[in-house]
Amino acid sequence: MRRLVARCAVVLALIFGAAPTLAEDGYDLWLRYHPLSAAQKADLPSSVYAEEGDATLRVAADEVTRALAAIRGEPVVRTSGAAPRAILLGTANTPRVAALKLPLASLGEEGYLLRTATVHGQPTTVIAANRPVGVLYGAFALIRRMQLGQPLSGLDIVDRPRVKLRILNHWDNLDRSVERGYSGQSIWDWWRLPDAKDPRYIDYARANASVGINGTVLNNVNAKAESLTAPYLAKAAAVADMLRPYGIKVYLSARFSAPIELGGLKTADPLDPAVRAWWKAKADEIYRTIPDFGGFLVKANSEGQPGPRDYHRTHADGANALAAAVAPHGGIVMWRAFVYAETDPEDRAKQAYTEFKPVDGKFADNVLVQVKNGAIDFQPREPFHPLFGAMPKTPMMVEFQITKEYLGFSTHLVYLGSLFAETLNADTFAKGRGSTVAKVVDGSLDGHRLSGIAGVANIGNDRNWSGSVFDQANWYAFGRFAWNPGADPQAIAAEWAGLTFTPDPAFVRPVTQMMMRSRQAAVDYMTPLGLAHLMATGHHYGPGPWVSDLSRPEWNPTYYHRAGADGIGFDRTRTGSNAVAQYAAPVARRFADPDKTGEDLLLWFHHLSWDRRMADGSTLWDTLVRRYDRGVASVDAMRGQWDALRPFVGSERWQHTASFLGVQAREARWWRDASIAYFQSVSRRPLPPGTAAPPHTLDWYKAQSFPFAPGN
Amino acid sequence: MRRLVARCAVVLALIFGAAPTLAEDGYDLWLRYHPLSAAQKADLPSSVYAEEGDATLRVAADEVTRALAAIRGEPVVRTSGAAPRAILLGTANTPRVAALKLPLASLGEEGYLLRTATVHGQPTTVIAANRPVGVLYGAFALIRRMQLGQPLSGLDIVDRPRVKLRILNHWDNLDRSVERGYSGQSIWDWWRLPDAKDPRYIDYARANASVGINGTVLNNVNAKAESLTAPYLAKAAAVADMLRPYGIKVYLSARFSAPIELGGLKTADPLDPAVRAWWKAKADEIYRTIPDFGGFLVKANSEGQPGPRDYHRTHADGANALAAAVAPHGGIVMWRAFVYAETDPEDRAKQAYTEFKPVDGKFADNVLVQVKNGAIDFQPREPFHPLFGAMPKTPMMVEFQITKEYLGFSTHLVYLGSLFAETLNADTFAKGRGSTVAKVVDGSLDGHRLSGIAGVANIGNDRNWSGSVFDQANWYAFGRFAWNPGADPQAIAAEWAGLTFTPDPAFVRPVTQMMMRSRQAAVDYMTPLGLAHLMATGHHYGPGPWVSDLSRPEWNPTYYHRAGADGIGFDRTRTGSNAVAQYAAPVARRFADPDKTGEDLLLWFHHLSWDRRMADGSTLWDTLVRRYDRGVASVDAMRGQWDALRPFVGSERWQHTASFLGVQAREARWWRDASIAYFQSVSRRPLPPGTAAPPHTLDWYKAQSFPFAPGN
Repeated sequence: MRRLVARCAVVLALIFGAAPTLAEDGYDLWLRYHPLSAAQKADLPSSVYAEEGDATLRVAADEVTRALAAIRGEPVVRTSGAAPRAILLGTANTPRVAALKLPLASLGEEGYLLRTATVHGQPTTVIAANRPVGVLYGAFALIRRMQLGQPLSGLDIVDRPRVKLRILNHWDNLDRSVERGYSGQSIWDWWRLPDAKDPRYIDYARANASVGINGTVLNNVNAKAESLTAPYLAKAAAVADMLRPYGIKVYLSARFSAPIELGGLKTADPLDPAVRAWWKAKADEIYRTIPDFGGFLVKANSEGQPGPRDYHRTHADGANALAAAVAPHGGIVMWRAFVYAETDPEDRAKQAYTEFKPVDGKFADNVLVQVKNGAIDFQPREPFHPLFGAMPKTPMMVEFQITKEYLGFSTHLVYLGSLFAETLNADTFAKGRGSTVAKVVDGSLDGHRLSGIAGVANIGNDRNWSGSVFDQANWYAFGRFAWNPGADPQAIAAEWAGLTFTPDPAFVRPVTQMMMRSRQAAVDYMTPLGLAHLMATGHHYGPGPWVSDLSRPEWNPTYYHRAGADGIGFDRTRTGSNAVAQYAAPVARRFADPDKTGEDLLLWFHHLSWDRRMADGSTLWDTLVRRYDRGVASVDAMRGQWDALRPFVGSERWQHTASFLGVQAREARWWRDASIAYFQSVSRRPLPPGTAAPPHTLDWYKAQSFPFAPGN
Repeated sequence: MRRLVARCAVVLALIFGAAPTLAEDGYDLWLRYHPLSAAQKADLPSSVYAEEGDATLRVAADEVTRALAAIRGEPVVRTSGAAPRAILLGTANTPRVAALKLPLASLGEEGYLLRTATVHGQPTTVIAANRPVGVLYGAFALIRRMQLGQPLSGLDIVDRPRVKLRILNHWDNLDRSVERGYSGQSIWDWWRLPDAKDPRYIDYARANASVGINGTVLNNVNAKAESLTAPYLAKAAAVADMLRPYGIKVYLSARFSAPIELGGLKTADPLDPAVRAWWKAKADEIYRTIPDFGGFLVKANSEGQPGPRDYHRTHADGANALAAAVAPHGGIVMWRAFVYAETDPEDRAKQAYTEFKPVDGKFADNVLVQVKNGAIDFQPREPFHPLFGAMPKTPMMVEFQITKEYLGFSTHLVYLGSLFAETLNADTFAKGRGSTVAKVVDGSLDGHRLSGIAGVANIGNDRNWSGSVFDQANWYAFGRFAWNPGADPQAIAAEWAGLTFTPDPAFVRPVTQMMMRSRQAAVDYMTPLGLAHLMATGHHYGPGPWVSDLSRPEWNPTYYHRAGADGIGFDRTRTGSNAVAQYAAPVARRFADPDKTGEDLLLWFHHLSWDRRMADGSTLWDTLVRRYDRGVASVDAMRGQWDALRPFVGSERWQHTASFLGVQAREARWWRDASIAYFQSVSRRPLPPGTAAPPHTLDWYKAQSFPFAPGN
């Protein structure tokens, strides 16, 4: 084998010419099909059997064949007859599968069954499902097992997604820029579509299907009306055609005022018959172009976007107008609850609840309300959004941000699995203990037919897709949590690391530890103790806790931390904004009491004296400083761990990650120093003993500027 | 071998996992090192000898080794002793090379010698030069021979560049957008530099060195002052460090008003001592960061950019201020002559000459004036710029635009080698017959020490670098013409095609024919008979001959074609703007006479009746229509040729090109139809017999809009 590889290294050069192709640049993501040791692969099947009339079954069989050949290091037989050690893929319509009389009923539309069975007297690995897409998901599940060197003998696994709509939101503009994108331009090359169909879209589909993502919103929620014109629908249709075999539906963000901009109407009032007719005709046109179009995502009356409130209509009125247009075609509407108004003096964290809770029950059957995980805006840490559990008559999607607008862009290593789990496991107490956000979102708490999870994609045209290798883990984890909101973030991290680098436990164990620590590290060096939104203006790169001059009060960091001579934190108890009252009583009671809130969310809910004693007897001020230091130390520790892992990782991906960890270490210090310099100017307290003073003056930190930051 | 390739296909899967890596996506450019047949490679060396103390010698030896191993399909011995069938690389400082007493004197600083010699009794292929960079150029020349299957026996070749500065101009902005870029974002990832050093920069360096490019201006001529701040200099230095071993110097575009914006001065007057001191200090700072910094490129008093005219100083005053700052470090200034003023009613084609000719002789020794190939702006066809030959005391660079702003972006297949050659071979008659633009540019006509050619790069972060495979040929051809302005465009096309696809003459012959026809095709379907600047507003995508409402008269297509009831064309003879008088007398006489001007430039210089008889007896109007038809037919013919070439080309690159040719065919028809619809509305002449009427009304063509066009 070694000789073969050596000879092949030459042939590689023959075939590819230039060495760069040889380097592992991260393009393969977690679909990195590498050879196993002889012992591990002895057990593996050597042939693949599938009926291939269906496009999805065909891509499932192709993927299993490709993976198996690479992992075994030998050609794989694609057979249409009996074969020893075969993998058999199929639905109940596949005669060989039907003959096995497998218990497929419980799998639903998208579940799958993996089982070791005897077919024609031969031991066979069966991937079965009710529909081809279930087979595809089963194929990827089996491939994962093979990649990780897990045994295939005696398999008996059933799995199905708990959430119906597992959707990426691309904040991708039609000019190919990406709002809050840190990995190059949009992968959607709108200008060249529909003529040029980038083969990369197929790899995008493979990656998403491999983690169960079944929908993608192609364009930014800050939508241009042009995305609904015929030329752009043809472009979207070309993408939809490529994604369809992988079980992925295309959705579009719709601009609420499109009837005016495209239709020439004088109004976009959702109750106006002409407006409703326009949306109906537009939906009909879309479905003629994309027969399985998923539906619309809408950001309305939010940060300057038009919406039904412009016509004194409710969000339900607005959503229902679009919902009526797509309903005949089986489409849905995802209506975002991210609203706040500069004219509203109410605590920004309260506004979405105030506006949406009263319209619970008013939405059409095919509308979901899409709610960010927290009430502000994708901060390093927020309590769960009070709308979860508060609108039992409405299917509620959670929206996570996979791209790290507030978490160090694609440069900082921050594993978001922990953040996803923290929100999903939070207990709303809406129907008593155990009413987790996960159960709200998967529809089980209130018995909804529709359910969904959305993730704002971190995908761009960078060769490695996500800007960094470790940001691929956040895409991966999003998909796995969307499939199962009760998943374990640590297990997902370990799985991803095993697939992406090597399943060697000597690698997986420490790297998983790094990943699991990483989010708390970012919280500590950016916004410890429940602080939030302290980032610099606009691009949100770096610290700006001193910023207080923006036109809208709730855009200013000082709005959030409220630091003064007396103390720090936003009082959201009854003595303050009383945002705690938006939560169910047991939660509200906990958040109302600083002794029970917990350190993680302390200053989110409470304004406290700098000298307040924490549980360990330290003052709040001293604890704040020490949290910053802890964050910096955690990043230094990650760098050390990564250095030690060099032997396990190919040079290009190791170097890339190491250089980013260097940036993160520098920027963690900057965050710490700038924040302490500022807060000390307010607290006027000495630094705790043994703590280093910031190396520059506060004015120096304030004077730093970062033009041309990406994603802005 | 075939079996080895088959087995290796499996090993490939082992190593790379996913199939996409298997596809040829164009990343390798013309450095595609593929196996030759047994007969072709029998002759090839099997070992490489080089002393590797020097970084440039090392990369030269690496490249030869990589290419040789791939082309031979066998490992190559890297030896430090005598070896049979070796390639020996070195300078006169390499003892084994010195012992050969080769005639290196005539090679200059960058030339090389390839010779078959006997070393220690062994037949040896020698690559020798005075300096390591010459060895590198020789290495790439030898590799080209190997790739094309040309024999290496009995070699005796010397070559050296005729032009000293062979420079790419990146119109790349600091936010990573690219002005007039049609291949994604900038490859310069400014935000992540200097920490993250994209390995792609090395491949960029290899590609450029392989065609002799020795300089690159990293940022847009519409420059931001920030590019000269310390953080951006550190980023540029990181790039410079990666390019240095490949003989490529880094240059920066400088914003003339930087002393105000960065230095806090009240003026940027080039004669103000504080301004001069600021530039001197800035240059010193740059050279501390980048010791071999090449110098500045400046766009001044052009399209809104600041410049010396703001202070009533000449362009020479402005250039000399910057030149004085870089002179002590050996730097140069490239000062663009692309100037025209909206306040100046003079024919735009005349303004650069009017402004620059009087200052000939006033520029410092280390200044070159950089002049676009034609007097307007990179049109499909223009006569050579009248400044060539008109400023004998000043080194004149020619600036070509490799990115195809006015030639169908990266979608249309237009080989620019023919355009480059047309300009370079044009005879200025400045010192009598044979005073070609090439001789002006290479400095030989007027005996200049400095000489240079600039090309506005078509490189972006698209995987295939240039947006399309055939646009790679334009990058390649630019480099080859910069090396030798007298080169033959057809030979370069054939060479590129052989390197990029296959040297099989059954492929190379027809594809070269396609390429050689392609530029005339674009001229015909866009701007035939010497018309120019008829593109739509802003993005320059598609036809807009009717546009007449832009604020500056010379931005309007109607300014250029001057079509009316009486006829069409811009009278630049004595009865008109008399631009012909800016040319040397023999040229002026030819251009002043419509019977001698030639069809290609007819309407550039003459306003003629629609009914004027052409050489073949047809009317001008009928000829105009038939030229549009000829352009469309040429594109259809190219599509047919490409279809026939499918067996020679890998599927991904074939498909990509085929889809683009489909776009080009559609858009050629659009250009033809829209232009004829418009011009017919003016000429009021019937279409010639057998000519199809445009399928839509003129208003329909006018109503087309193309939001989000790239590069704008």
